[in-house]
Amino acid sequence: MTINGQFQQTNNNREAQTLNRAPVTVLGLGPMGHALAGALLKAGHPTTVWNRSAGKADALTAQGAILAETVTEAVAASPLTIVCVLDYDAVHAIVGPLGDALRGRTLVNLTADSPIRARQSAEWAAGHGIEYLDGAIMTPTTSIGQSSAVVLYSGSEAVYQAHRQTFASIGGTSVHLGEDPGRAAAYDVSLLDIFWTSMSGYIHALTLAKAENISAKELLPFAQGISSILPDIMAALAEQVDNGQYPGNGSNLLSAATSMEHIIDTAHAHGIDTRVLIAANDIAKHAIDAGHGTDGFALLTEVLRKKHG
Amino acid sequence: MTINGQFQQTNNNREAQTLNRAPVTVLGLGPMGHALAGALLKAGHPTTVWNRSAGKADALTAQGAILAETVTEAVAASPLTIVCVLDYDAVHAIVGPLGDALRGRTLVNLTADSPIRARQSAEWAAGHGIEYLDGAIMTPTTSIGQSSAVVLYSGSEAVYQAHRQTFASIGGTSVHLGEDPGRAAAYDVSLLDIFWTSMSGYIHALTLAKAENISAKELLPFAQGISSILPDIMAALAEQVDNGQYPGNGSNLLSAATSMEHIIDTAHAHGIDTRVLIAANDIAKHAIDAGHGTDGFALLTEVLRKKHG
Repeated sequence: MTINGQFQQTNNNREAQTLNRAPVTVLGLGPMGHALAGALLKAGHPTTVWNRSAGKADALTAQGAILAETVTEAVAASPLTIVCVLDYDAVHAIVGPLGDALRGRTLVNLTADSPIRARQSAEWAAGHGIEYLDGAIMTPTTSIGQSSAVVLYSGSEAVYQAHRQTFASIGGTSVHLGEDPGRAAAYDVSLLDIFWTSMSGYIHALTLAKAENISAKELLPFAQGISSILPDIMAALAEQVDNGQYPGNGSNLLSAATSMEHIIDTAHAHGIDTRVLIAANDIAKHAIDAGHGTDGFALLTEVLRKKHG
Repeated sequence: MTINGQFQQTNNNREAQTLNRAPVTVLGLGPMGHALAGALLKAGHPTTVWNRSAGKADALTAQGAILAETVTEAVAASPLTIVCVLDYDAVHAIVGPLGDALRGRTLVNLTADSPIRARQSAEWAAGHGIEYLDGAIMTPTTSIGQSSAVVLYSGSEAVYQAHRQTFASIGGTSVHLGEDPGRAAAYDVSLLDIFWTSMSGYIHALTLAKAENISAKELLPFAQGISSILPDIMAALAEQVDNGQYPGNGSNLLSAATSMEHIIDTAHAHGIDTRVLIAANDIAKHAIDAGHGTDGFALLTEVLRKKHG
């Protein structure tokens, strides 16, 4: 709400704001890079942009962005450069050949990749005298510049503090997760793990429903109802995992496996590919065979940690 | 809200209510059967209960339930019998040997199982002159008798209408899904597919986070944030699936696969079992290999339907 208020003020006094906002360079104008540059421009930052292929900057230059012809020219234009491209291979293909152009400047890498690669990138940056922050954008492109945007950062606290106002221009909630540069990416992969596994389950459920002559539209309100009961269940299981205790009094692994088998049987009867749920059920059955049938579902964190297949 | 109001009135005038409510028999006093009998008693239904093992009925008889000594005696006590046990094998072990005791009466099977077995049970019931409804309870035991309870029914509309008031005593939302007795179970397995696959993803994410020194408590608010963005995404994908068109402009299969690979790489580096997400990613890669890389994630409904592995 504070940030929204700030934007409001900003929009009412665009000239004063432009004078106050730090210059920023944005490398990569895919959907997310484009949204980032747009939000920075709107908040009054002098914004330089660059993209590997031409033509992506037209809407941004019309809003006042400066289009750099080379990456070297782009990073020279601002003390802070934000890069957001497909993955870290793409990042290093862009900034790797720069030599000393980024030395003494700050690079904020909002590209999604793994925590291992985030730490490697931080090492590379340290070796080249570049201040480096790694970040992960948790919300869709449409959220950027809005109060609903959530962006996680990790790496040097001092660097984060120095650029907080710029990060506020990107969106609503900015969180600094600590000095480990891999931490934002570690949150990111964990949260995407929930997202993509859930999406796989939803798509499979729509396939199963269709085979049973239930349209997606008919299933939807009930499917959305599942989303509404998850936060409380997540909270209960999180507490169990942190405590290392998995009481099965509400629902145990035996009943979970029985439930999964009803789904698998139905999907098989329709010839639907069910390998995702079979894998989930195999993990539960492994725990049941090891004597954990009456423990709760969250015990599976212990089983997953000890790789068994 | 209407039903809540009704309960209020009922509780203020328990005697009148008892006279108005139909007698019901409940077979099976596991956690859900116990909750069902408790809600029926509270709403004023003369309630007869039976359970295979003794001692489960004590709290219910204290509230006025009649404990039957045999199943035959239990079903003879009421025109309507509700059965809720582990699965349909358990149902048939209980009602199979009854002979004609249920003939001309109504059996409502709220046990969870597959739609195939629900249809088989309906056929069995028809062959024995038993009015039959199949149902699925979508909410936890604690919801039973409350406005938050959701129970789906399928089978004869006439039988459903005849017992609507009893179903209202079980909880908030009762939905009759049509004459196909397998339809409630079909919704049930589809929704449980979402639930268990999502739970598997959440448990895996907590395992991955822990390996990255992120506690479940730290990840929780962001994980809950994922649940809050799912309903809109579900609605968009449901429309695509019903239309058979899968535009990849927001997010396509190539970016989904890249994202899943970051998670898989991180989990592998920690030695965490990742077969669920590997299976999900294999399905996406299969679609990409078939030329669907720039299509949306919901295209996978078409791939899953044509079993390929």
